[in-house]
Amino acid sequence: MPVDPKKVLRLNLPQWQGGDHPDYRIGARVLAAIAPKALGPEETVAVAATASDQRHVEQGIVSRQPLLDNLAAARSAIARHNPEAIVTLGGDCLVSLAPIAYLSERYGDDLAVLWVDAHPDVMTAKEFRNAHAHVLGMLMGIGDADFVAAVSKPVKGAKVLYVGLTETTPYETDFIPAHGMTRLSPEDLAGSAEPVLAWLRASGAKKVAVHFDLDVLDPTLYDFLLSQDPTAGPDAFAGVAKGRMRFEDVAKILGVVDAVADIVGLTIAEYMPWNAIWLSKSLQTLPLLGKR
Amino acid sequence: MPVDPKKVLRLNLPQWQGGDHPDYRIGARVLAAIAPKALGPEETVAVAATASDQRHVEQGIVSRQPLLDNLAAARSAIARHNPEAIVTLGGDCLVSLAPIAYLSERYGDDLAVLWVDAHPDVMTAKEFRNAHAHVLGMLMGIGDADFVAAVSKPVKGAKVLYVGLTETTPYETDFIPAHGMTRLSPEDLAGSAEPVLAWLRASGAKKVAVHFDLDVLDPTLYDFLLSQDPTAGPDAFAGVAKGRMRFEDVAKILGVVDAVADIVGLTIAEYMPWNAIWLSKSLQTLPLLGKR
Repeated sequence: MPVDPKKVLRLNLPQWQGGDHPDYRIGARVLAAIAPKALGPEETVAVAATASDQRHVEQGIVSRQPLLDNLAAARSAIARHNPEAIVTLGGDCLVSLAPIAYLSERYGDDLAVLWVDAHPDVMTAKEFRNAHAHVLGMLMGIGDADFVAAVSKPVKGAKVLYVGLTETTPYETDFIPAHGMTRLSPEDLAGSAEPVLAWLRASGAKKVAVHFDLDVLDPTLYDFLLSQDPTAGPDAFAGVAKGRMRFEDVAKILGVVDAVADIVGLTIAEYMPWNAIWLSKSLQTLPLLGKR
Repeated sequence: MPVDPKKVLRLNLPQWQGGDHPDYRIGARVLAAIAPKALGPEETVAVAATASDQRHVEQGIVSRQPLLDNLAAARSAIARHNPEAIVTLGGDCLVSLAPIAYLSERYGDDLAVLWVDAHPDVMTAKEFRNAHAHVLGMLMGIGDADFVAAVSKPVKGAKVLYVGLTETTPYETDFIPAHGMTRLSPEDLAGSAEPVLAWLRASGAKKVAVHFDLDVLDPTLYDFLLSQDPTAGPDAFAGVAKGRMRFEDVAKILGVVDAVADIVGLTIAEYMPWNAIWLSKSLQTLPLLGKR
């Protein structure tokens, strides 16, 4: 039964603290502005701007309290609508925590999660201090207890498929099979949706939540990715896994999935439109627009 | 007396018909999203989306009636607030018509207009069918009578300074001195604001309206200009004058002007963030976001 567009919540979540990079906030504003108009309810979570005193590391996580505040605000926004489906526009990857936790509670074992990402996002504070890399672990009930408390029905590893995953760290490489998760690299897919469909059939799930981290895309083809920061040094992202997908391949896979299951969640995350970010800052140098 | 930020109207005008290019609408949405937050009232004019039947040429002007409708809506929006100053975020260059007509009526001969643009925008339907190239002429009382009717106090040529103007057509080359207007090329300025200040002093004006068409910028340095359309053929913009300014030079000139006069109008026009425009269209190919 396809989702009624009027029952789809549009959740704008300009969260930057999970990646500890204030420019995610500008990217989120642009993404919300260019997305097709929502036909159902729309909520925009108020996320605090940069302030150095909000970037404390607590219990191994940067900006832990502001992130918990954003999480609470996102959960309230969702609860106000009881939606059948949620489109979440980030912001950093952690924006998927509230909506997919809600969808997991609502649809239970009927929900599969497609994690379309160059990174597995299953680290904890022990491995990495930026919580955008913890989000899928948290959704599975693993990680900082105050975040995991927002997940009433953890997603089982067997219900998670990585789409477009590339190189992983030893911790991640072990974690994935140990939790019954499946990974498909760009080369496993080879431009076809069939491996995804085969996995989905085997999972038995009829509802699908999609987390689309734009960094699954090939940075040599798209300039709006974190790693394409024109102000970064040449080695700033050395050793960080890069995506190798094309947007139209992701769109094709999701379209085929949409034909056999109900897509009830779609997150777009980690959009960094560098030229718009530059102009946003440059506009502040003009009279009537800048600070006096 | 500097302008009270609470008396500055933010006017978002996603008009595309004046340039006959629907993508101006997306650019305007991005510009409104990345601009510093307005401290005073904000109005967004509802501009119709593309529809082929709205692109008729009437009396030599493409989309003449929709443009008159937008003009009426912009005038109403301004009239609701009686602002001391207006920041207008376009959209095509014609967006300056309503706000600068209002400022001219309000401040009379005390108003100077800085037209920061690679093009003089003084053509009429006789020379060119896209009205974004008519806007300054209309503000001077020259052009299509139904548009000019919105200008109760025409701006005198002696009160207009071109900043960054480059090559002009024979019609434009004659028009400028014939109407007592002054032009400064990027080379006349040579990175200095002094020629602008000298003109401003001589004008006697204490209030300044600025029209900043981003195409005054050098397209080899900025990729968000009409002429940088990645889908256009290599000769698509042959023969069209290109800008040769840098953003920081424009900002410096405006900052110096702001120190000696009150800037009461600022328009940003013709923003074409091609990569965001591409993503905006691509998002429509995804489930939950695209048309069903």
